[in-house]
This record gives sequence, structure tokens and C-alpha cells, in this order.
Amino acid sequence: MTAPAQAVLRPAASAAGLAALSERFGGRFSTGLALREQHCNTTTWVAGQPPDAVVFPGSAAEVQEIVRICAAHALPVIPFGVGTSLEGQVNAPYGGISIDFREMNRVLAVHPEDLDCVVEPGVTRKQLNEYLRDQGVFFPIDPGADASLGGMTATRASGTNAVRYGTMKDNVLSIKAVLGNGEVLTTARRARKSAAGYDLTRLLVGSEGTLGVITEITLKLYGIPEAVAAGICPFPSVEAACQATIATIQSGIPVARIELLDALQVVAVNAYSKLALPERPLLCVEFHGSEAGVAEQSERFGAIAAECGGGPFEWATRAEDRSRLWQARHDAYWSGRGLRPGTQAIATDVCVPISQLAACVVATQEDIAQSRLVAPILGHVGDGNFHLTLLVDLDDADEVKRAKGLLERLVERALAIDGTCTGEHGVGQGKMKYLLAEHGAAALAAMRAIKQAFDPQNIMNPGKIVTLG
Amino acid sequence: MTAPAQAVLRPAASAAGLAALSERFGGRFSTGLALREQHCNTTTWVAGQPPDAVVFPGSAAEVQEIVRICAAHALPVIPFGVGTSLEGQVNAPYGGISIDFREMNRVLAVHPEDLDCVVEPGVTRKQLNEYLRDQGVFFPIDPGADASLGGMTATRASGTNAVRYGTMKDNVLSIKAVLGNGEVLTTARRARKSAAGYDLTRLLVGSEGTLGVITEITLKLYGIPEAVAAGICPFPSVEAACQATIATIQSGIPVARIELLDALQVVAVNAYSKLALPERPLLCVEFHGSEAGVAEQSERFGAIAAECGGGPFEWATRAEDRSRLWQARHDAYWSGRGLRPGTQAIATDVCVPISQLAACVVATQEDIAQSRLVAPILGHVGDGNFHLTLLVDLDDADEVKRAKGLLERLVERALAIDGTCTGEHGVGQGKMKYLLAEHGAAALAAMRAIKQAFDPQNIMNPGKIVTLG
Repeated sequence: MTAPAQAVLRPAASAAGLAALSERFGGRFSTGLALREQHCNTTTWVAGQPPDAVVFPGSAAEVQEIVRICAAHALPVIPFGVGTSLEGQVNAPYGGISIDFREMNRVLAVHPEDLDCVVEPGVTRKQLNEYLRDQGVFFPIDPGADASLGGMTATRASGTNAVRYGTMKDNVLSIKAVLGNGEVLTTARRARKSAAGYDLTRLLVGSEGTLGVITEITLKLYGIPEAVAAGICPFPSVEAACQATIATIQSGIPVARIELLDALQVVAVNAYSKLALPERPLLCVEFHGSEAGVAEQSERFGAIAAECGGGPFEWATRAEDRSRLWQARHDAYWSGRGLRPGTQAIATDVCVPISQLAACVVATQEDIAQSRLVAPILGHVGDGNFHLTLLVDLDDADEVKRAKGLLERLVERALAIDGTCTGEHGVGQGKMKYLLAEHGAAALAAMRAIKQAFDPQNIMNPGKIVTLG
Repeated sequence: MTAPAQAVLRPAASAAGLAALSERFGGRFSTGLALREQHCNTTTWVAGQPPDAVVFPGSAAEVQEIVRICAAHALPVIPFGVGTSLEGQVNAPYGGISIDFREMNRVLAVHPEDLDCVVEPGVTRKQLNEYLRDQGVFFPIDPGADASLGGMTATRASGTNAVRYGTMKDNVLSIKAVLGNGEVLTTARRARKSAAGYDLTRLLVGSEGTLGVITEITLKLYGIPEAVAAGICPFPSVEAACQATIATIQSGIPVARIELLDALQVVAVNAYSKLALPERPLLCVEFHGSEAGVAEQSERFGAIAAECGGGPFEWATRAEDRSRLWQARHDAYWSGRGLRPGTQAIATDVCVPISQLAACVVATQEDIAQSRLVAPILGHVGDGNFHLTLLVDLDDADEVKRAKGLLERLVERALAIDGTCTGEHGVGQGKMKYLLAEHGAAALAAMRAIKQAFDPQNIMNPGKIVTLG
């Protein structure tokens, strides 16, 4: 919908850089157009800007070589996991080399006593959990897509159970990354906590490849809970569902997931997943703990829901019932698309203080209706985070204009109540324009100063998050 | 024990700076020696280096004025909370102005539905919890001392219940800070999570005043648990206690506190607090939750402890029993001093992967014995973090030499097993020398680049964490 900046003409030196990479990496380096087009945006509405070439390193040392060659020829480097980012993070507005991590997909170590593991960035979250299953531990962060852990780290991903387990910010213990000068940075030791200097780990989490290329990640793990209970509860209104969420969290119930689907989203899920959920605002919840613990949590939640006018609360501990329910939740994005086949789905998110959530969701629903648009809503409401799947006919110029206006007002509405323009999708190219309004001039200048300090040559995924002067 | 760098001679311009501050702040500005000496180290063995003057601002705008005057005259600024830091963080090796936050001690807002509050940096943790008590919420981070929340933020403090609630890194939502150029930076919105750019919040948490002067903090709060249970359990060995800790955490018991006292520390506590605890390695635990929940947690912990050879496990839900127990734990530092009256207590900490904790503690106990020193040990063992209270006769040169050697070997031992030189005390001046070995050259260069980008004039608490040029 927007017209991203066109690639600038780069010096002829870049041809020499491509030649050097081709010579070094042979069959693991390609300039084929089809491959390059697969390496710009795959699940987003931001227009694709293919890189000049794609390379598939097999080790951190090879990533170092790639970055050094690129630095010598002023070629941008753009890390690529599995391409599920939503804001144009893997686009190549200035051309350059897409570093695809699919061959760096090894689990390097698991330390069950320490509840941590060490992975290469191409490992996906489902692959990791398959690998861990027989060791009694799991990695909880679940953004929906089977994203790579490198990409999840780089975009500060979170998802359905962040309310209990936190986001990637809370679950990365250490990162190795290749800097723009080709050196390898290790952000921290494997100790559970440290007060030894600036928090480079958190600085790299969410930096979207603009400060360094991640080559190794140490992640926190958790014991697989003895029992898991899940349930659904319809509410008469979004306000009632949000009030129940606030009361649940305030009362210290350690809910693992608490997801809001608005009525339209439930309609979409029913159609797509062949379910018969009540077509009203719905909370999907999940509890982790001991058998007695999850039973008590479920009962307490049920009582709170009833006090807020919700119900009936139906819960399930059988694994197949739970997975059917959560599969439907995970298919929400695809189900949303089913509401208007042939349109483009624009996925966006904001996050606000939870006390403001209900009003923000309701105002957004009204705005959607007044804008004559179709956009089911679902939210990680325990965090105050919600998503729109805006279904737009890109051939209808007036509808595109109305959609653009809606997206702008959504962010304005969030910022006006101390919220953020993105809770978990990241900035990429799509949300750069909001950072000044969100953070103010001093913070944006600080971000630019950090970018300048880490990447004076501006070759690390340039044109994302912040631009240099 | 070490000889910190002497203050360098500063240009005569600093006299003009002092005069300008005196004129502006009148009675809230002082160059009196006694006051200045109170504003360098108060609870640490690092030799004191008083600032040139102390100023007491009443607002963020006044902090801005102070920093602007100091910047104009190249005067260092050193933020001061209540002076409980342990590694020389408030020393003034290059002179300058101590900014004492005792008049900036207002709780600015409490949002119970959002479980957050906004405070000025001079508010102490006990003051905040007193203020919050009738609202059903509390702030959990407890480093022992009644530290200021500004200081706790600046040093990335944690303490006894970090195993459940995390450290300051996990509990600060946003920071306002005055930068070296006098501008005010706001690091984040009040939303629970965000993916909107670099994580400036975490960059300032733990930066010890070297990047900016904190003037406002937004903190996470938690609902006061319905029930709290505490208990103590002796073990035949440190290894057995650590094994019980690992098994407790692996099995997902949400223990709120799990503290190890070695046998000598128990002897000290018994003497100081008039208790009759079994003088063996001891775990003190606390559980937060519902009545049924804490009962179940306590029972499961007791079973695990017994499997590891520990017991009897005695637990108490009565508030007075619990507070007596935890008072003893909090008095551990003072009780340790009681073991050798008249000596200097050197408090230090390291943090290691929990699987390595028992071996590291035992090796350290052996090293203490072989070094003919007295040093009780206590640990936040859920995090792999432990403390030594080393009691040293500073008039005995040989003993001082042996103590220095012990401290060096303690850090070497931690670093050799992927640990950190400090889990929660911070770097200050005392641990700067270990950062290269811990982080490597690339990370240290990155920290210096960040410092240079934020504070090119090098006036923000200079001589702490990293040095420039």
C-alpha cells in the first residue's frame, strides 16, 4: 500500500562483492530472481524489495566471512530466517545480500539442570520443542507461525503465552552476533542473571538485524507442566471480557494464555475450523501447573468470568480437545482471510495499558464499521496487545484509502493512551514512521546514535527501525 | 584494599560550575566535607572518593538544570540514592557533583488495574510498599537494604525473590532520564510490552548513571498473594541443598524465594538473631499463592528435599514466624560481621549456571579454609547467585593479601564455568577489571561505543563500568 523507498544505485563495487561471494560460496550463493523474490516479504502487505543475492552459510565463521566481504564492498546484509515477519524486516531497499539461516539449524546444547539451551538461528520453535520433548523441558514463546528462533530474537517476538512466560526479551540469556566490522560479539554468560555492565543481550533482542547478525542464541527453558487445562468463555461484551482478564491477573492466577477473539473473529474461526463456538466476544484461556493447581486456577477463573457476566466457561484437560481449540486460535489469521477471499490480509498490532484495552478495542471496532471495512480482532489481552486482520481489496482505491486511514488512527489511538505502535510485530519498514511520535526526539536520537556506533558503514539491514542522517 | 585512581586535576572552570550551582540552588547545594564524605561509599570496602559538592534537586527540571550547568563546566555528575551500593558506584574519582535524590521521593501514580506505578528515583522500596499496602498490590524486588528505586534501577538490583519475580531488568517498564546533553529521554510507553525499536529501558537498567541520570521510573506491580508460606530445611551438604533447589525449579514449583545459608552463615545468624537453627547448610524457602496452592507447593518441596537427604522441613504460614525468619536472613550481612568484630566486611557476589553452583560453592569454601579466612556464604540459589561476606583485618597485611587472592580466584572460578563476576551488585569501580575477561574485547568495545555515543563529554558518573579513550 505504501511505496517503499526504491533501491538506491550502488557503486560498481557491489558487483565485485557479489563476485567474491559467488567464488567463496559456490552453489550456496545465488542471484536467481525467483530465489531472491522468495527472500523479501512473504507474509506481509509491504511491497517486496528483493536482495541482490542469497547466501546459505553453514557456520558462524562463514557468516563472519560474508559480513567481511560485504563490508569491504559496502553491500548491505539482511538476515533471513523463515520469512514470517510482518513489517518488511527482510526487504532489501538498498539491495544487498540475504543471509538465509536454513543450514544453520542445529541445537548445539541442552542443559536440563540449568533450564537452558543453545541453538543456531535457523532452528524453528517447533523444531526445538520436538527436539526437547523427551527431556521434560520446553520453550514457551509461540508467535503463531513456526518462526526461526533467530528471527524471533531479532524481532522481540512474543505471542499467546507471553502473559506468563514473557517475550523473547525475557527468554534470551545470551547472543552471539557478527558485527558490521566482522567481529563476533558475545552479549553475556550463561548465568541466569548478571549485573556486569550494559545489557547487550536486550539491546540485540528486537534490533532486527540492524546492529548485528545473530549466529547463536542461548534460551531459557521450562519444565513441561504436569497438567495443562484449557477453556473457552463467551462474554456479553468486549468490556466484560477485558474486565475478567484484569481481575484474573490482579488476583494472581498464573494464567498461561488468555486470548480475546471478537465476535467477527469467532465467526471466521467457526467457518474456517468447522467449529460451533458462540459468536460473541470470547476468551480462550490455558493454565499450567499441577493437577490440583490447574483445577483450582480454572475454577477461580470461572468464578471471575461469571462475576463479569461471562459464561458458560467450558474447560478441557484432554490434549486432543485443547489442541483442537488452540489450532483454531492459531488459524485465526487464515480464518480471517476466509471472510473475504481474494483480498489482501493486512496483519497489524498495537499494545496498550490493559486498563485502556476495552475502550481501545471498542473504539477500533467502531472505526472499522464507520470505515466500511472488514477486520476481525484478536488479542493477547493479558498483555494489552491486540491484532487486526484487515481484509482489503487492493484494486479498490477508495477502500485502500479508508484502510490506510484506519491503520493510522489505530496507532494514534494507542499512542494517545500510553500504548505502543507495535507490541510484537516489530518496526521493520512498516512502522518506522511512528517511532518519533511514540518515543520522542531524544529517544530516537539515542537509537540513531546506537545504530551509528554499531554500524557506521550502515550495511546492517539498512532502512529498518531507524535511518542514519 | 585496592587503590582507586586519584581524582585528576580539573580545569579552573569547575570552580565556576560550583559557583553557578551554588547560586542556583542556595541551601540545597553544599560543599561541606562531612556531607561530601557521606556521599561517597557508605557500605563498601572500596575507598571513598568524595564529590566536590552535593545538590538536592526537587524535580526532573532541576536535574536537567544541574546536568546542563555541569556539562557547561565539564563537571562530572554522580547520582546518589541512599548509598547502599557495594562496588563504589557513588564514588567521585574525578570529582564532580553528587545529585542526592532524597527530595525526589514521591510516588507519582499507581495504576492497580495495569499493575504498575510511577515513582521518583528517591522513593525507597519499603516506602513504596508501605504506600501500596492498602491497594492490594506490592513491588517484589528486595535486595536486602532499603535501597532507593533509582539506585536499584541503575544497578540492576535483584535479591531474594528474583527467582520468581525477576530482577529490576524484568520489572522496569519505562525510565525518564536526563542525558549528558541535558535532554530528557523517555525509554518506553506504559504498555506491558513493545517491539518498537531498540530496548532503551534495559540499556539504562544497570548502567549505573554512566549513560543518564534517572528522574522517573515506571515499575511493574503484583497482586499481594492470598497466602504466603515460608519454611526452613537443613541439608547434610551444600550439594544436597543445591540438588533440591534444581529439582524444585525443574518441577515447576513457583518458589518465590529459595536461599542457601552455609553452615558458618547459620552459626552467625543464630548468634546475631538469637535463633537455634540447625548449624548445617540450610535452605530458606517461601511460597506465594492461594491457600491450597502454597500448601501444595510446600508439600512438594518437602518431598523433594527429603529425596535429596534434607529435612526436617519446617514451614510457617503465621506472619510473625515468617518475618522472624526472614529478618534473620536479611540480617545475614550484619550477623556475618558479628563473627569477627572490628574487622572490615567485604560483600561480594558472583552468579553461575545452577548446575555448577554446588561445586563452585564447595570449591570456594575450601579456598576460604586454605586461605585461613572467615567468610560466611549465602546464596540466591534459585538463580545460581551467591554472596561472600569476607571478614578482613585491614591492619594485617598478609591477611589482606590472602583476601585479595581469594576474591580474584572467586571471580576466575565463576568465569571458568560460564558465570558472571557479579549477579546483582554491579560493576562500579570494584569489578571493572573483570569485564574484559567476562565479556571479551568485542563486547567491551561495544559498551565503550555506547558510552561514547551517549556521553561524549564523559561527565556521567565517569570511571565506572567502562572508561573512554
